[in-house]
Amino acid sequence: MTAQEQVTLNPDRIGVEGANLNFYQAMQNLSIDMMDAVWLQADWVQCVHPNWETITGWDEIRASWVNIFQNTHRMHIQPSEIAIHTDSQFAWVTCVESIHTFAGGRMGISFAQATNVFKHEGEDWKMVHHHASPLPREVALSGTASAPSLN
Amino acid sequence: MTAQEQVTLNPDRIGVEGANLNFYQAMQNLSIDMMDAVWLQADWVQCVHPNWETITGWDEIRASWVNIFQNTHRMHIQPSEIAIHTDSQFAWVTCVESIHTFAGGRMGISFAQATNVFKHEGEDWKMVHHHASPLPREVALSGTASAPSLN
Repeated sequence: MTAQEQVTLNPDRIGVEGANLNFYQAMQNLSIDMMDAVWLQADWVQCVHPNWETITGWDEIRASWVNIFQNTHRMHIQPSEIAIHTDSQFAWVTCVESIHTFAGGRMGISFAQATNVFKHEGEDWKMVHHHASPLPREVALSGTASAPSLN
Repeated sequence: MTAQEQVTLNPDRIGVEGANLNFYQAMQNLSIDMMDAVWLQADWVQCVHPNWETITGWDEIRASWVNIFQNTHRMHIQPSEIAIHTDSQFAWVTCVESIHTFAGGRMGISFAQATNVFKHEGEDWKMVHHHASPLPREVALSGTASAPSLN
């Protein structure tokens, strides 16, 4: 996207960027209360966790997050390569998720590609669609660029 | 999405539905000319093929389709479970892709979850983002509901 197109398409870019970061903060904090604030609580919103079938409707999506949070001891997640596209009503964000999880005494490191869609609701941007899928990246153990920071 | 919300959000629903079907028709026909007509040819559009890294920019995306088409003898692809959401400028579509490929003398059957984003350009809806990821579905060989039709 050129600078000119960004100005035309992204009048609410900052709001969308904040909403996207709040989503990853909710995941990292394993906080269903924060997740409640991120999503539009409608029966048509959709969520695709990596390697899962699509979940439709807030009640079922919320239950999936509760389940994930209950089965995760700790999670570090960091979005990178963030691209934001928005008009006045909808926005979609793509990013790469670097995910460190600690569950059942084991640490796992994985990468996922995410497409996140947000809808402008009053003053807020609410998540209405999350699609994450595994990325076939090698984990660099020596601290090179592909190893996510845990700051 | 309720009927009322669909009316509010989807004034261009038919156009978006057609654009989405044209995309799958281009894949099924292994036609780069049809794919040229489907996509917005901009440097910021994005494409995630199943298990691939994200490709950004039309030139690189086009090259990936040329490569896929050259290495595929025949492809049947059928979208199902289609959900369409649109405002006047952007739309996103989710669907399940049932994919039969014939390459190197072998037939493969797979399923993918897709998120497709379109942008209203003049009279047309142009694809600006395609994110497809593998779905862990069993293939039913006896012709039950999960076996895609090849009509």
